[in-house]
Amino acid sequence: MSLQYILELLGTGFFAISGALVANQKSKPYWFGVTFIGFITSIGGGSIRDILLGIYPLAWVKDPNFIYAIIIGIALSSIFFNRLLKLRKTFFLFDSLGIAMFTIIGTEKALQHDISPVIAAIMGMFSAVMGGVMRDVLTNEIPVIFRKEIYATACLIGAMVYLLLDHFGVERNLCIFIPITLIFGIRIVAVYYNLSLPKFRKDD
Amino acid sequence: MSLQYILELLGTGFFAISGALVANQKSKPYWFGVTFIGFITSIGGGSIRDILLGIYPLAWVKDPNFIYAIIIGIALSSIFFNRLLKLRKTFFLFDSLGIAMFTIIGTEKALQHDISPVIAAIMGMFSAVMGGVMRDVLTNEIPVIFRKEIYATACLIGAMVYLLLDHFGVERNLCIFIPITLIFGIRIVAVYYNLSLPKFRKDD
Amino acid sequence: MSLQYILELLGTGFFAISGALVANQKSKPYWFGVTFIGFITSIGGGSIRDILLGIYPLAWVKDPNFIYAIIIGIALSSIFFNRLLKLRKTFFLFDSLGIAMFTIIGTEKALQHDISPVIAAIMGMFSAVMGGVMRDVLTNEIPVIFRKEIYATACLIGAMVYLLLDHFGVERNLCIFIPITLIFGIRIVAVYYNLSLPKFRKDD
Repeated sequence: MSLQYILELLGTGFFAISGALVANQKSKPYWFGVTFIGFITSIGGGSIRDILLGIYPLAWVKDPNFIYAIIIGIALSSIFFNRLLKLRKTFFLFDSLGIAMFTIIGTEKALQHDISPVIAAIMGMFSAVMGGVMRDVLTNEIPVIFRKEIYATACLIGAMVYLLLDHFGVERNLCIFIPITLIFGIRIVAVYYNLSLPKFRKDD
Repeated sequence: MSLQYILELLGTGFFAISGALVANQKSKPYWFGVTFIGFITSIGGGSIRDILLGIYPLAWVKDPNFIYAIIIGIALSSIFFNRLLKLRKTFFLFDSLGIAMFTIIGTEKALQHDISPVIAAIMGMFSAVMGGVMRDVLTNEIPVIFRKEIYATACLIGAMVYLLLDHFGVERNLCIFIPITLIFGIRIVAVYYNLSLPKFRKDD
Repeated sequence: MSLQYILELLGTGFFAISGALVANQKSKPYWFGVTFIGFITSIGGGSIRDILLGIYPLAWVKDPNFIYAIIIGIALSSIFFNRLLKLRKTFFLFDSLGIAMFTIIGTEKALQHDISPVIAAIMGMFSAVMGGVMRDVLTNEIPVIFRKEIYATACLIGAMVYLLLDHFGVERNLCIFIPITLIFGIRIVAVYYNLSLPKFRKDD
């Protein structure tokens, strides 16, 4: 089992937990709806990346382990739901772990398919955020990437750091763990200090 | 003409009718909007299935008969619009026929492409419900699969019965018609008795 | 550089400008959000066309020039934002140029992949309007194609004229420029005279 595979399974489970927690806070949290939203949140970003790159078969289509990772994530979020909500930061934690892992896996996968670095960084960011975008569109919310500016920007920064480290021949495990930690760190610091990026219109 | 092909054309026409009826109840039912919504409702689910599985060319892209089935469905729903609405259960009838047929066609198609049974069942359910999900997202509604829990669950049950019958070597026509009747029956019984599945949170 | 390529780059830049202007009128126009919406508006329609037709790699994935055209478009719309808004018709102008070019490019591309004319016209219209549909879905608006009936209808008319001219062996540059001018013209006349198509229900 490769490092990429393990990270992808873990990230999938983390996203399923965060998706199920979001779906649950909606007014009518039926089992099917919660599972469906957890599922889309988990596999949405990676599926969009692979469809855009034309990489077939999609990981979760050929390998049921991804489905099991999602089911385990949703089961855990169901069993520990009340406790997880009380901790309040749990969603944020799992979601941040998910986007950090998926950004770097996505960037690496794109590079393996002869894609230019600028597109690879976009693909990494898409892998991380598009599942959440689909979750928000399906539940009629303004997507989180528009509400919290730092969300996707952290992914782009992490992807660029990965590309730099990779370009300068840094050892692969470091190439992966440094930007994952960076994305995770940026997001925690940003939320803690309530940072955001400058607006588009200066006269606002 | 194979049975799969005939069912797919019929299901496409049924979904076009149900899509056009939904679009029509919106405040500004222009011709283009109604046709577009009918079209997306019809081809959305199957297109997502084929794109996820990498099955090219898509059925409706290579074969204009699907377009004609959609146009006939939309024309029928236009001619009989006032009568169809008076009957009130017409939308429900055509939509139920559509999801029942598409679930089993989708599951069968996925199996023909060397997909594991659990993924094939998901693909069958996607074929049936994703057109409606896209219709609801485009018209700013909460997707029906979240409002009516039994909707997609009936598809999953039907897909599983199909897989079981197929596994035990039951004759193919029975493999197809038993679960189609089952999905159709579950949905009618569920709506008639206003059933729904238990919620995710027990403390609700 | 082919004519198709130049038109596609230009159309991409025009759509980025129109997407960024729309995103900007939202209440919280952060840099990332504006860029993301400009990006999706630009590449959404063409990506959906290529994914439906199975044409890989996607133009913008293999060729970073599309990314640069988008960045230039967004930068221009940022620098001239206040002036562009004052002119008021700028968004409309760039959006009309974008849909006119993308319709014809999309129809031509589909024909080059052995697609029947009726599907080619649909693909041309999808190329032109689906980026805007995605922009509107992501920003929680009712898609413009449902609000302004003439929007997509002009694209379909243009695509049909292109197919006719092509069928009768008219010289290629004319095949391209006549329908582009026609789509652009229909839209300007329609907005100027506030035209719209008849409704679906006559009893409304």
